[in-house]
Amino acid sequence: MTTLSYVQLSSSINPSFWNKLSELKLDVFKLNEDGKDIWGYFPITVLIVSSTNCATPFLEVDSTSFNSEVNGQLTYLKFHGKLYNKNTLEQFKECNKMELINGVGQSITEQIISGKALCDPSILNTFLLLSFADLKKYHYYYWFGFPVPKGLVIEKIASSPIIEEFSLELAEKIHNGYKQLAINQRCYFLVIKGKSGLEVYTLAEKLKDINLEDIPEVYFVFHNISSVSSSIGSQLRNYVTLLLHECKFLANEQVNFIAFHLSREKSRITCLDSICYKLKLPAVADSTLTSEWVGWEKNERGKMGPKLANLKNSLDPLIISENAVDLNLKLMKWNLVPSIDLDKLKNTKCLLLGSGTLGCSVARTLLGWGVRNITFVDNSAVSYSNPVRQSLYTYQDSVEMKPKADAAAENIRKIFPGVNSIGYQMTIPMPGHTVGDSMVNQTKETVEKLIQLIESHDVIFLLMDSRESRWLPTLLANAQQKVVLNAALGFDSYLVMRHGIYVENATEQSMEHPEGYRVIDGANLGCYFCNDVTAPCNSMKNRTLDQQCTVTRPGVSQIAGSLAVELAVSLIQHKDGVHAPAFYTTSQNVSSQDLSDINPSNLGLVPHSIRGFLSSFEQFLPATQKYKNCVACSDMIIQEYKEKGMEFLLEVFNSSKHLEDVALLTEMLKETDFGEVLEFSDEDFCSQSSQ
Amino acid sequence: MTTLSYVQLSSSINPSFWNKLSELKLDVFKLNEDGKDIWGYFPITVLIVSSTNCATPFLEVDSTSFNSEVNGQLTYLKFHGKLYNKNTLEQFKECNKMELINGVGQSITEQIISGKALCDPSILNTFLLLSFADLKKYHYYYWFGFPVPKGLVIEKIASSPIIEEFSLELAEKIHNGYKQLAINQRCYFLVIKGKSGLEVYTLAEKLKDINLEDIPEVYFVFHNISSVSSSIGSQLRNYVTLLLHECKFLANEQVNFIAFHLSREKSRITCLDSICYKLKLPAVADSTLTSEWVGWEKNERGKMGPKLANLKNSLDPLIISENAVDLNLKLMKWNLVPSIDLDKLKNTKCLLLGSGTLGCSVARTLLGWGVRNITFVDNSAVSYSNPVRQSLYTYQDSVEMKPKADAAAENIRKIFPGVNSIGYQMTIPMPGHTVGDSMVNQTKETVEKLIQLIESHDVIFLLMDSRESRWLPTLLANAQQKVVLNAALGFDSYLVMRHGIYVENATEQSMEHPEGYRVIDGANLGCYFCNDVTAPCNSMKNRTLDQQCTVTRPGVSQIAGSLAVELAVSLIQHKDGVHAPAFYTTSQNVSSQDLSDINPSNLGLVPHSIRGFLSSFEQFLPATQKYKNCVACSDMIIQEYKEKGMEFLLEVFNSSKHLEDVALLTEMLKETDFGEVLEFSDEDFCSQSSQ
Repeated sequence: MTTLSYVQLSSSINPSFWNKLSELKLDVFKLNEDGKDIWGYFPITVLIVSSTNCATPFLEVDSTSFNSEVNGQLTYLKFHGKLYNKNTLEQFKECNKMELINGVGQSITEQIISGKALCDPSILNTFLLLSFADLKKYHYYYWFGFPVPKGLVIEKIASSPIIEEFSLELAEKIHNGYKQLAINQRCYFLVIKGKSGLEVYTLAEKLKDINLEDIPEVYFVFHNISSVSSSIGSQLRNYVTLLLHECKFLANEQVNFIAFHLSREKSRITCLDSICYKLKLPAVADSTLTSEWVGWEKNERGKMGPKLANLKNSLDPLIISENAVDLNLKLMKWNLVPSIDLDKLKNTKCLLLGSGTLGCSVARTLLGWGVRNITFVDNSAVSYSNPVRQSLYTYQDSVEMKPKADAAAENIRKIFPGVNSIGYQMTIPMPGHTVGDSMVNQTKETVEKLIQLIESHDVIFLLMDSRESRWLPTLLANAQQKVVLNAALGFDSYLVMRHGIYVENATEQSMEHPEGYRVIDGANLGCYFCNDVTAPCNSMKNRTLDQQCTVTRPGVSQIAGSLAVELAVSLIQHKDGVHAPAFYTTSQNVSSQDLSDINPSNLGLVPHSIRGFLSSFEQFLPATQKYKNCVACSDMIIQEYKEKGMEFLLEVFNSSKHLEDVALLTEMLKETDFGEVLEFSDEDFCSQSSQ
Repeated sequence: MTTLSYVQLSSSINPSFWNKLSELKLDVFKLNEDGKDIWGYFPITVLIVSSTNCATPFLEVDSTSFNSEVNGQLTYLKFHGKLYNKNTLEQFKECNKMELINGVGQSITEQIISGKALCDPSILNTFLLLSFADLKKYHYYYWFGFPVPKGLVIEKIASSPIIEEFSLELAEKIHNGYKQLAINQRCYFLVIKGKSGLEVYTLAEKLKDINLEDIPEVYFVFHNISSVSSSIGSQLRNYVTLLLHECKFLANEQVNFIAFHLSREKSRITCLDSICYKLKLPAVADSTLTSEWVGWEKNERGKMGPKLANLKNSLDPLIISENAVDLNLKLMKWNLVPSIDLDKLKNTKCLLLGSGTLGCSVARTLLGWGVRNITFVDNSAVSYSNPVRQSLYTYQDSVEMKPKADAAAENIRKIFPGVNSIGYQMTIPMPGHTVGDSMVNQTKETVEKLIQLIESHDVIFLLMDSRESRWLPTLLANAQQKVVLNAALGFDSYLVMRHGIYVENATEQSMEHPEGYRVIDGANLGCYFCNDVTAPCNSMKNRTLDQQCTVTRPGVSQIAGSLAVELAVSLIQHKDGVHAPAFYTTSQNVSSQDLSDINPSNLGLVPHSIRGFLSSFEQFLPATQKYKNCVACSDMIIQEYKEKGMEFLLEVFNSSKHLEDVALLTEMLKETDFGEVLEFSDEDFCSQSSQ
């Protein structure tokens, strides 16, 4: 008479399990640490039972382990698992392991008491997994447990191969009976060898009917996970707990068990490797159902301790990189902005007209927001003075005089290989920049290309260093109803604005609220040119060195570029998208903070424009109405362009005065007292501030 | 009897001339386009005179051409030049060339009339240089002119070698007489072969005394620039103009000239290659002194047109790069901020503690400002999520897991090789991060290194992602009276501030102005910890993933990093430097713009701190007084550190509570009503805004 020796399962984790866990943590679990239901699989018919086989039995988990819908497979025993994924390594280390395994054990106990385990004895096969996923390092700390009640002593009276106790025919009958059982019944069932022959039953069918006198004829079967004939999977103790609960008379009795085992003999599967045991059950009463459970797995060093899976080196660095970039953004959703739509950002196609200080800054901030489609347009090459202010270029680019658009597209992929970037080297035609006969065809091609680029992108950023180069894209984006984000720099000042979205014959309207603020709807917001009463003309000519170089305090472009992107992102996230109205205060009693509470973007206020000054570190949020005689966005101009197309554009390129005629500005300037309409232009505004 | 044929000088420009011009344009001339005096050099005794020699005579200019102090050299004729350097290529192209050369001619005329040219006949040798320097491309457009009066017809009656008209002895006498002349008299002088022998005179000495009857004995000498015996340098016409002005009776007369020429015969220099001419002067009266001048140089293609010098390829790209970077900054001085001290910025040594999103942004903005000394400190390696937000790293750096400090120092040199950058990988000891016995020595070494780094730098940037890591550098910088620029991020908010400069036992003072603003002097400005009433402690422990990653809107770090540098630069440029007081408004009637007018930095306002919020695109400029119980900058803490040094620090690392004791906070908290002192901390402030 010896104490039974047990074999414990070992855990075998397919890396896909961790990938799935990472995904779920980011997208579903987030900071929720509640126990999650998972499933593990024990493969049957793999091991050959012998007295010497020392192969460890493994419980496997993989990416399907989170899916309760996965149907049981005949070749696996399905284990019920509880995942406790902690948010920090400290919580992982410091959480009370005893409490944890007792909790899972308690739930087994409860299901035994409620009868659930009787109906579905697979519940007795339970594991728990405590883990901490360091998603930045791809390190997974984990500890498996296979809870069994502590101190339940079962003695082995005798054991013998099944064929010594059953004829081959009866053994075959047991096997056939097993195959008739539902999958979740196959781990624990009954064989009764009565006078009328041998029958196989589920526990639920027969257990409650058994009396003490039936015991010699009853065999309590369990699917043994051990391949060593002398030892038994520790889960037997859960089985015995169930049996003692249902049949209290079994306490202290000697009882027949079959350690069921399927094995492959030649091409046939049999249960002839199963072993019959006569076991003496402990003398516990139901009231003593233990609250203490054991079963934590030992680690590689044979110690009671957690294991570490380091997946970093086994992953494709490109995939790690993409995941890492997404990670920071997904974390925003957890606590801060649960309603943010990251996919919308990821799929937004951004066209950057101008790849200088602003273009580089905008591209980098877009990358930070997870935008994956960035197109660069510029007409110049990287010069030696560029890299220190234009954050996508290096000294080597200037030595090689690389075209900026190409260099930007190439270098941004060196930052993040997952981005789709492309560069176009082209000069945007401008009002007042006469197109000679020899250049007409090329100019037409450039305009066509620009139309096509605007068509194929969602957000158009104007980031050039001249006023007149902004005119054509402003007009084209308007005609195509694409949103324009415009950034312009003074020496120590900046202007960042979004253009209104063109709606044919939109009724002019803006609402004055008595509380001290006004609203202009998206269709009535002004563009960059709306403050002007003259057409943009060739300002490149006659520029002195300091004017050519757009001398600015270096911080200005980084700030303006970042703000342009942040404004774009706030706009995209607004429920009305690019059509979002602009709220602005008309009273000192209403702060922008107050407005951001009224205006419903999940990222806060979506102003029309932001003007800032480094000389006083101030920022203002003016909003302006679309100007009915605007040379770039007024109905008259858009209509003229729609009717005459290229002909109109060429006329404007050759004489910017033509714009003033079409927009009826010429006429108006004659009629009106100048003082009434001549507001400051941006350059005036910016240069004033830099004095 | 034939019309005289003239040879015109050609220009020969040493590249050093353009370098000097660039330097002067940037530092001195700036946008001033007035004619500048320059000097050219014609080498004598170089050419061998012959009838066939077709070597072109060159006038040379080089870097000394701008320096009137350069003494005349015996081997050169010095030409007087006027430089017209235009600010734009258009102005260069479009300026009236005729007007320009007439203007220079007019000035020759004036000096003839005033008698100045008589006293200094070298004035007759004049050139002008019209130029446009494209300092960004190292392209120099230029056009030389050698003004001579138009339509002055001089006829050649006869010519003969000097030795046919003078004996060898007399020729030798002429040469000796020449050598006695002052250098500026040597180009034009007189030889009179009287009865009493041969004499050499300056024009001023004798010209006015000459009468018509003396003419046969008078030889008007000019240093001929032509080596062809049959032709004469065009400057003769200026000489004749002078002669006709002084001696009107010469009009229409036949006169003796000597085309003086020095040549080397074996090792002797003689004037025996000189040619005697009999020339018939034109019949002009003084009143007809021409106002029309000619003499523009032809270009390489034999056309009247400008030349282009492209120096780019002949320059060391590293030098071009350094110049290019300086260029943008120097341009600021031209118009915008003439008083800015760029060298002060260039020589400022910046220590960046933290090389993450903020560190990268700060480094780049410093580079833009021309700062050449940047030291990075960080303890971590580049991870896959970094490059899209940390602008000094690439994907490849994360694959190689490079230490951030090293990668930043290396990559910034790839942007601008002229920067001195170095990286230190170290973890800054923190309050509440217990130092085990085994770590004491290493911790001490780290502290020593940090003390040394702060000592050897001028501005300390705190750019870490935890509160407690800022404590030690705040204390050390205070003790060493170095200025600290601090930037900290919330999800969509930022704080940028400068710390006060520690002055032992500074009297607390701040001035309230009745106009609606207050001033806090530099010694009484608070630090990052002054708003707190608890010591920083180990906040790393138990951080969930979103807390670990310091999740922020990507624009926040670019904005805060830029503002930190702009604030630092404004501070450095302030007349009181790092001790500048902070002005802040206490009334809605006083704007920051108003304050920047009162506060005398050439770049505008130098606030104490800048707090911004992307949710409302607002920015505020709060100023706070140093807190007498501050755990980082109060006198008590500094004194304790100065007295106990490392012992005190180790005590704090092991228990942040110790700080509260030393700063008498513990005591105070007991005494005081909490509500009175418990202001919001930065984290509270920032996280409130992100809700």
